Amino acid sequence: APVKVGILTVSDTVAAGAGPDGSGPRAVSVINSLSEKLGGAKVVATAVAPDEVNEIQNVLKNWSDVKKVNLILTTGGTGFSPRDITPEATKSLIEREAPGLLQVMLQESLKVTPFAMLSRAMAGIRGSTLIINMPGNPNAVAECIDALMPALPHALRQLKGDKREKHPLHV
Amino acid sequence: APVKVGILTVSDTVAAGAGPDGSGPRAVSVINSLSEKLGGAKVVATAVAPDEVNEIQNVLKNWSDVKKVNLILTTGGTGFSPRDITPEATKSLIEREAPGLLQVMLQESLKVTPFAMLSRAMAGIRGSTLIINMPGNPNAVAECIDALMPALPHALRQLKGDKREKHPLHV
Amino acid sequence: APVKVGILTVSDTVAAGAGPDGSGPRAVSVINSLSEKLGGAKVVATAVAPDEVNEIQNVLKNWSDVKKVNLILTTGGTGFSPRDITPEATKSLIEREAPGLLQVMLQESLKVTPFAMLSRAMAGIRGSTLIINMPGNPNAVAECIDALMPALPHALRQLKGDKREKHPLHV
Ligand code: NA
Repeated sequence: APVKVGILTVSDTVAAGAGPDGSGPRAVSVINSLSEKLGGAKVVATAVAPDEVNEIQNVLKNWSDVKKVNLILTTGGTGFSPRDITPEATKSLIEREAPGLLQVMLQESLKVTPFAMLSRAMAGIRGSTLIINMPGNPNAVAECIDALMPALPHALRQLKGDKREKHPLHV
Repeated sequence: APVKVGILTVSDTVAAGAGPDGSGPRAVSVINSLSEKLGGAKVVATAVAPDEVNEIQNVLKNWSDVKKVNLILTTGGTGFSPRDITPEATKSLIEREAPGLLQVMLQESLKVTPFAMLSRAMAGIRGSTLIINMPGNPNAVAECIDALMPALPHALRQLKGDKREKHPLHV
Repeated sequence: APVKVGILTVSDTVAAGAGPDGSGPRAVSVINSLSEKLGGAKVVATAVAPDEVNEIQNVLKNWSDVKKVNLILTTGGTGFSPRDITPEATKSLIEREAPGLLQVMLQESLKVTPFAMLSRAMAGIRGSTLIINMPGNPNAVAECIDALMPALPHALRQLKGDKREKHPLHV
């Protein structure tokens, strides 16, 4: 079975048709290029939501609970602007948080820009779906996925309950 | 409009008049010296509270909800001592957490001393106020503010809803 | 008074008698070898629990509230597998979180393996007991304790309310 991926762009501007979506398509393209390394990853769903908790959560719940997507990446809405609430929308749906992924993404992003410290991204598991908030900048999305790649395939196999993955080196 | 800053010293000793406040005045002096870089920062309020959740929260709520302070720095009460509860008092008032600021402060502080790992500091946004817990040691306060300076002015502009600040490099 | 330590192995396999406990005994041995540096640490309790929230919590509550253990290390159940719930069992019992310890453990573990980013470990204080989740891999347990050693003795003295420990360099 392939690894099913969903990409959610969170942006009032894009949702209103008032600007192009740069980060969503970039995330799709990065996932496609890494498909084999990710165990046969396939983007099975994409969507755009405004910066509204309910609208973000409707997509996340549908993709995790109904579509049984293995990995959801959101992009946008993680900063300090008044309407940035993607992390809050995500956190209340997550059952098991994954702070280590955030620490690594931030550590790698800080090598590119100190503005990375303003990321309020959340990451964690809902059912058998891993949900990770990514920044809204297209290059940053690519950098964050790169930062996770050394362990992401393993994470997705563990989530599926693969017993051979039960006790890796350090978890 | 200037950037309004409040400095809250949390300490049973200082609140009881049983010892001098070293860290609060140090924070005031650091903010004053960085005023221009912070977009015209001005310390508009200072206070001392004992290590009591209610007393800390009364100050934080007044400064954020009534005085509309843009940035509140607390100092003290972030360690492992039985009465250290500044992070808990702060966390329950925060609406949007800012873990990236904490990771950077800790990363920089660890370069000075391994005791930095004992910081339990919290940071985040309440309304349009950014609240950041700092250590109780005066030098550490200065080091932590320094660590945040590359992104703090940007954070404060984003919080005010400045649209030009909506999509910085990596958030 | 010595520093009382409890070591809890969390593993369905070990609890069912279907495999050996590698990480619990390793943690005991590391603590014993560091006993003097930790202020006279003595392992006063060891246990094995399956990956069940209630069973983990029963041990943690008994050791902290009744036995008044100073330090509890858990090992196992911190990853992405469907039954890994040690962090969630721990988090709801913790009164004051200690995220700095986690950041340091992760930072050091990442030097050994990128899989460390999959740790979802929690750490914090309940009453006067410090509880720290460690990975399930024996070598990782040793590495994580090592990473904490520069500040752990100080943390344990602060927890006991030693006033001389109130204002260390940076907390
Ligand atoms: Na962190």
